[in-house]
Amino acid sequence: MNIPTFTDVEKAHEIVQKYAHRTPVLSSVSINQIVGAELFFKCENLQKVGAFKFRGACNAVFSLSEEDAQKGVATHSSGNHAAALALAARMRGIAAHIVMPENSPEIKKKAVAGYGAKITFCKPTLQARESTLAQVIEETGATEIHPYNNFHVIAGQGTAAKELIEDKDEFDIIMAPVGGGGLLSGTAISTKQLLPNCKIIATEPAGADDAYRSFHSKKWVPSENPKTIADGLLTSLGERNFAIILDKVDDIVTVSEDSIVEAMRMIWERMKIIIEPSSAVPLAAILEKKVDVQGKKVGIILSGGNLDLGKLPF
Amino acid sequence: MNIPTFTDVEKAHEIVQKYAHRTPVLSSVSINQIVGAELFFKCENLQKVGAFKFRGACNAVFSLSEEDAQKGVATHSSGNHAAALALAARMRGIAAHIVMPENSPEIKKKAVAGYGAKITFCKPTLQARESTLAQVIEETGATEIHPYNNFHVIAGQGTAAKELIEDKDEFDIIMAPVGGGGLLSGTAISTKQLLPNCKIIATEPAGADDAYRSFHSKKWVPSENPKTIADGLLTSLGERNFAIILDKVDDIVTVSEDSIVEAMRMIWERMKIIIEPSSAVPLAAILEKKVDVQGKKVGIILSGGNLDLGKLPF
Repeated sequence: MNIPTFTDVEKAHEIVQKYAHRTPVLSSVSINQIVGAELFFKCENLQKVGAFKFRGACNAVFSLSEEDAQKGVATHSSGNHAAALALAARMRGIAAHIVMPENSPEIKKKAVAGYGAKITFCKPTLQARESTLAQVIEETGATEIHPYNNFHVIAGQGTAAKELIEDKDEFDIIMAPVGGGGLLSGTAISTKQLLPNCKIIATEPAGADDAYRSFHSKKWVPSENPKTIADGLLTSLGERNFAIILDKVDDIVTVSEDSIVEAMRMIWERMKIIIEPSSAVPLAAILEKKVDVQGKKVGIILSGGNLDLGKLPF
Repeated sequence: MNIPTFTDVEKAHEIVQKYAHRTPVLSSVSINQIVGAELFFKCENLQKVGAFKFRGACNAVFSLSEEDAQKGVATHSSGNHAAALALAARMRGIAAHIVMPENSPEIKKKAVAGYGAKITFCKPTLQARESTLAQVIEETGATEIHPYNNFHVIAGQGTAAKELIEDKDEFDIIMAPVGGGGLLSGTAISTKQLLPNCKIIATEPAGADDAYRSFHSKKWVPSENPKTIADGLLTSLGERNFAIILDKVDDIVTVSEDSIVEAMRMIWERMKIIIEPSSAVPLAAILEKKVDVQGKKVGIILSGGNLDLGKLPF
């Protein structure tokens, strides 16, 4: 199994920094007072397409050989990865084939179409998504870019933590949410290389705790009937991601839905930035005191800011 | 009448940069496509207390002599200036006396109290506010810091445009909203010094168009029964502010309430940042084509991000 190292993150960064925003790192005096720590938020909600996903997609697309690139890229996704892959492909001038469930929200269909992707709709089952994708690849010769279980995607996602550490030096703890594990595994690779003594703590909704259970049992557990407002964190861990997480992550903790909403509102109100629920999960863990941050310097990766403004939980 | 020059803005910046955030300058590929220009947003919504007001308050507080400072500072305000003055005073370790109308929203009373200010409530009339403030000053010897018609406040507000120009070089146009004129006059001083050929265009809600009428008639017109969602722009121009605006601003245009809401939503959705309605007024003017920005490089100062999340206009 092909696992990226920090050298691969450095290579990814040479590509990513040409196309992605170097997102700002923000902090809030009032949140710091509430939690008794120094928190630094890496704002991937301010990244292109509104999510860290653009880093990985960008690295995957621009790492393709010219010959492969001409056949395009493909994935099945209805979320941030689809938009990210579509934009990265457009930047390289190649086709992005996106398989989407026919019941995807109109707003997501429009976003992906807006970036110029070729969309193929399918029935809303995992089986239909996979078989439709296989057919698209068969017809086009496109390269599949998996949203998280992909070498170049993981290396690309690692560039967010690399920038955070470059901008703010030492940290005692770096935190990220975990869904499929792309962001977390990339973050772990960069952090353990640059700051060997820094703890990496991942956070997950209690209603979608497959990574928590997998990590603590050291045995891969699938995500079954997950239920959480943090819709970016519903998926199961990828194989590569799980291997990296077992090797490098120090702990995974879970949080309640109420805490996620409280943390999300705190960041909206006090930091004046829009984050999606998934981004609020690390701060939720701090508010629940699942992680001891007293007097510490803590980096938090805000994963994205895409949500329907007409359906806020407050 | 004592009017600041760019030298005063430079002096203010030496103070302000010690205490305030150097806020990021963000841009959005999709908004640029919509308007056909390159827009750069200076994010004062991400400033301390959530508004540019902290710059001016900070400069005013730290410019006081030690003797004057010990007697504290005072103002009447229920908005961002009160919070800004309270925080700046706390940073210098001196008292802030804030006169607030007794019917101010609880959320604003709490915010100002939270920064450690001494609040005196009064009847909700301008006369009561002024007489109560006079009494507080009589009793304490505190220095009044007017929210915009104040030398050091204007110089402090000018530091936002100075940073914007330092970070992004040349601009064809720089835009700001106008209420009392503190931000606009400071912006004009910095811009005309650093970029003599750059146009300065101010924007105002049509429902609160006293600055528009004052500017075009060259005669000060008071704000009477203003009505707009942009609650930061209800006040009349200050004397110093009007003098600077007449001298340095190229144009003032007005916009509809619908355009303000549309521009606000566009910035929330596409840039993932929370702005208050006042901040949306410059983009509203671009969407209404009141300002020709085609192919131009435009700087926009987003003034603040304080609003009640429970009362959104969308």
